[in-house]
This record gives sequence, structure tokens and C-alpha cells, in this order.
Amino acid sequence: MAKKTVPSVRDALRVRPGSGLHLGPRDTPVGPATKAEAADLLAATGERLAVLQEALYAESRRSVLLVLQGMDTSGKGGTVSHVCGLVNPQGLRVTSFKAPTRQELRHDFLWRVRKQVPPPGYIGVFDRSHYEDVLIARVQELVPREVWDARYFAINEFEAELAEAGTTVVKVFLHISPEEQRERLIARLETPAKQWKYDPADLVARSRWTEYEEAYRAALERCGTAAAPWYIVPADRKWYRNWAVASVLLETLEELAPTPPEPTYDVAAELARITYADPWG
Amino acid sequence: MAKKTVPSVRDALRVRPGSGLHLGPRDTPVGPATKAEAADLLAATGERLAVLQEALYAESRRSVLLVLQGMDTSGKGGTVSHVCGLVNPQGLRVTSFKAPTRQELRHDFLWRVRKQVPPPGYIGVFDRSHYEDVLIARVQELVPREVWDARYFAINEFEAELAEAGTTVVKVFLHISPEEQRERLIARLETPAKQWKYDPADLVARSRWTEYEEAYRAALERCGTAAAPWYIVPADRKWYRNWAVASVLLETLEELAPTPPEPTYDVAAELARITYADPWG
Repeated sequence: MAKKTVPSVRDALRVRPGSGLHLGPRDTPVGPATKAEAADLLAATGERLAVLQEALYAESRRSVLLVLQGMDTSGKGGTVSHVCGLVNPQGLRVTSFKAPTRQELRHDFLWRVRKQVPPPGYIGVFDRSHYEDVLIARVQELVPREVWDARYFAINEFEAELAEAGTTVVKVFLHISPEEQRERLIARLETPAKQWKYDPADLVARSRWTEYEEAYRAALERCGTAAAPWYIVPADRKWYRNWAVASVLLETLEELAPTPPEPTYDVAAELARITYADPWG
Repeated sequence: MAKKTVPSVRDALRVRPGSGLHLGPRDTPVGPATKAEAADLLAATGERLAVLQEALYAESRRSVLLVLQGMDTSGKGGTVSHVCGLVNPQGLRVTSFKAPTRQELRHDFLWRVRKQVPPPGYIGVFDRSHYEDVLIARVQELVPREVWDARYFAINEFEAELAEAGTTVVKVFLHISPEEQRERLIARLETPAKQWKYDPADLVARSRWTEYEEAYRAALERCGTAAAPWYIVPADRKWYRNWAVASVLLETLEELAPTPPEPTYDVAAELARITYADPWG
């Protein structure tokens, strides 16, 4: 369990439904103030995460699903690399959701998502998710209003179902400023090794920033449920972002408090077998 | 490409069909002699691995499948953690094969394996694999001889198919001594946090060490093909094992020499758009 004396990162960053959510300013209400401090805290967090993840895997009874959303360049990939890289890849399942294929479009929007829900023992990470179906689908009018409008309800039902079945859903909105996005897009274009990450459609989306922000606001407000809360992570500084997401994940695992199962065999008898009755001893 | 002057780890560890393979002694023909040297080399290898993996992911045309096999406690899980932990989890797919379920047993032995082949751009890792079907299945006589005997051929066909379709298969046998296994089993039993990893069946398998060794020998000899070679990695020392597997993986990626695709857009034009025509500039 999280100690009561430590201020909870989740409490500080959680979206409270009906609280008249506004997305900015991107201040940092808790946590490290410098990059060096963040590095120390992240290392310590990583060690505790690794222990708890092994226990989750050993227990093999429940799972955690971390959903990452945010504008282009907000750092979803970087978060996967720096935060999820702290735990054993054996117990991790990362899924990157691209534009749906023709086959996927023939099904309900949750069809492809259900197949990627982490099984017991695993931490699943969604780099983009079913929320795209109320974000780009809404802003770019890929489907009629009544279709995307019904999806908030479907998402809440789906996530409540997951919670019921033992999957703790943690949703993180990586919140960057348009100024920071501009810098990052320019950096991508100016760095040959990063040019493959750039897509001219990024600037189309950028030109509709306010509409996207409104779509995010709606998703966070309508789907920030007790069963599957949203967290807003200030993401203009990568070191703050990594620390914050790692901390939200750590607090989630601490609350779950997974414990490896008790041995179903007789430990002393097994030790005796290998100590005294071993042909290779 | 690997520089010609550097001795190839793959050449040193590769199983050569018909070379009268014997599995011991577990000497270390190449590489670091001390733990400290191995740590330095592993860090350098990790950095190059990360760059090449990003290129593989960006290219999104070919994939790599690393198959890990070895006796209980040989370090398959540790290798996943320490070697695969060096690359971005976004481009990694780890599959741990357990005893087949009833549903899986109703299908051909390769059915569940085919579903886990890494898609283009990914490094897939199998912690155990279809080789269990010619290892435990053979030693414990889970199927009649004619059934497991036909599987070597089916495996070669399957792996040649993968190579043809753009998946480079790299198979690693983690080679430990019975003395080292004994120490590790005792350590598992004596460490409460590790007791969940122990299974009394481990001692049953251990009591048939020679038969398992013979089954491994057969698998390595009959399935050590040009299309999908086997490497024998001395695994009594974890630092040597980690360095060796990382090096085999690195050399494999160096040979593939993945390159991110050239931009399909006009870089200068995009830079001009965001520099001069940006509403948020």
C-alpha cells in the first residue's frame, strides 16, 4: 500500500468527473523540480516497479492496462521506452494501435482492442487505443456524430467489464503545449534518423489543435470513471513525464499489492531431495 | 555489416550440422573473461542493438525471432530480462510457451506457435518454443516415437518458410551444467520470493538429464539449418550468457542492416510549413 504520508501522484493528477476540467496550464503539481532529481526518483521507482511486476506475474491472477494517449509527439513512444523499459519485458505486452485496417473496420471499434487486453499476470500498454475512435474519428468526422457519441458509453461499459474481470485500467493523457509540439516536429524533420516518424498528416491534425483539445476534454470528462480513471500528465518535459507515468503505475501496483502464491509443494522435502538424493550432487 | 576484423560470436557458437556435435564442455570460446569486462561490452552492445532495432521497426519490412531453449534454470527468463531489456519494448514481443492447453492440443503442434511469429518490424522472443515438442514430448513419451520423429522435418519446413517470408530465426541453447542447475534450484527453494518459480517436476526432469541432453543434441543436429541456425551459449555464468546472446542478436541485426525508409514527403516543404505558416508559431 502507498504510505499515507507520501503525497499521492495519482491524487494530484487524476481527472475528477464534473470538476469543470480544463487541460491547461501544464504546470507540475507534484514531483521533482529538476532533471537530476527526476532521474534519481525514476531509478528508485523502477526498482520497486520491477519487484511488484514480478509479483504480479507470479501471482498470475490480475493484470494492469496502461493506456497512453496524447497529441502527435507528446511522447507515447518515449514513455513506452523509458517507463515500460523499467520492467521485465517478459511480463509486458505493448500494443501500438495504428489506423484500423479494412478487416478491423468491418467489426465494432472495440473488436481489435479486446484481443489485446493483457492476460492475468501481465502489464499491457496501449500506445493509442480505443480512444482514437472518439478523437480522430470525431474531429475528422470519420463517422457520424451519433456513432461517435454512443462510443463514450460503450467505452465506459467495456472498461467497467475489464475492471470486473481483474484488469486495472490506468489511462494517461500526455499533455503537451502547441509550442513544444512545434519544436518536436521541427526536430523530427531536421534529424534524418527521425524523419520516418514524421507524417504530413501531423500538420493537418495540428491545424485543428483546438478541436482535438475539445475532443480530449470530452473523452477525459465522460470516461474518467472510478473504475478506470484518467490522469493528466504534463509532458512538455520528458523527465517529468517519465517520472509521473512511472509513479502512477507504481502507485497502482502498490494498491493491488500482488503477492506470489504460496508454494503448493513441501519446501523442506524438496530441498532434502536435491541435497541428499541427487544423482548429480 | 560486422567488421571482418572482429571475431564473430556467431561463428564461434554456431552449431554445424554433421560436425559430430557434443554439448560439453561448457567452455567460453570467445568474449569477455571477467564480469566487469562483460558489463562494459554488454552496455556497448545494448546501445547498438537499440539503434538497429529502431531501424528495423522503422523499416517495418522484416522481423527477427529469437528462440530460447535450455534446461530448467538455464536462464531463459533472465536472458529476456537482461538482453531483451536493452531494446525498446515497443518493438519487442515476448511469448512464454507453457504446457499446451487442451485447446492447443487439439491442433497441430505448430498451430499456437504460428500465431506468435513476430510481424514485420518486430523482434520476437520465444521463451521455450515448438522445440518442447521434440524435447519433453520425446523424453516423457507424451506422443509415440513416429509422431515426434516427424516433427524435426516439420520444424525445418516451418522455419524455412519463416526465413522465406522475411523472419530471421535465431535459436539459442542455453547450456548449463547439472552442478550449476543444482545450485540454482537450491537457491530458488531457499529464497521465499523465488519459490513460485520452483516446480517439483523440475527434479523429475533433472533425474532424466542424460535423456534430455540427448534430445537437445538431436534437435540441435537435425534442426541446425542454414536458414535457422542454432547457437550453443555457455550459460553457467550469467554475465557471459547475457553478453553472448546480445552479441548473437547484434550480429544478426548488423547483417540484416535495416534502414528507415526514405521520407515520401518533401522535407524542406514541411519545414517551411511549420516554420512560416503555423498558426501557433
